[in-house]
Amino acid sequence: MMGKFLAKVVVTLKPSILDVQGRTVENSLKTIGFSQINNIRVGKYITFTVDANTIEEARKIADNATDTLLFNPNIETYNLEVVEMETGDRR
Amino acid sequence: MMGKFLAKVVVTLKPSILDVQGRTVENSLKTIGFSQINNIRVGKYITFTVDANTIEEARKIADNATDTLLFNPNIETYNLEVVEMETGDRR
Repeated sequence: MMGKFLAKVVVTLKPSILDVQGRTVENSLKTIGFSQINNIRVGKYITFTVDANTIEEARKIADNATDTLLFNPNIETYNLEVVEMETGDRR
Repeated sequence: MMGKFLAKVVVTLKPSILDVQGRTVENSLKTIGFSQINNIRVGKYITFTVDANTIEEARKIADNATDTLLFNPNIETYNLEVVEMETGDRR
């Protein structure tokens, strides 16, 4: 029976890559007094639903989609989590 | 004694807000054959370190910084997690 799964993908810049956006936010925070905050990194948090027969199939589809379109392997890494959705759960 | 804490902030668009970036990615995925994928939402995943005496203090600082600069309360919501870092842990 076809089920519905929720994929959550966290895409982050590799540690060796300069995070320009993070640096900018960090500078702004320091300007307004947040001297205790450092090492800001800004990544992406992507969620989507997957129609599949099993969680293994859903994971494979989500993995393929992420590899194909959602991240840049030269500068980013990603972490993928797939969970089965409750009936009627929209997120 | 001063400790180091890691804050992880997930910023997502409110469900009622149209996710233009997510819609664009979804259309692209469908074009190349991923018909099983729907409801793509693209948010931000922000991490930073906080110097503080206690985890409560670290959480307060992280909360303030997020409120001040990291999200737009009109269209976004956020979820904040703060954990104590191991000695020598850089992320």
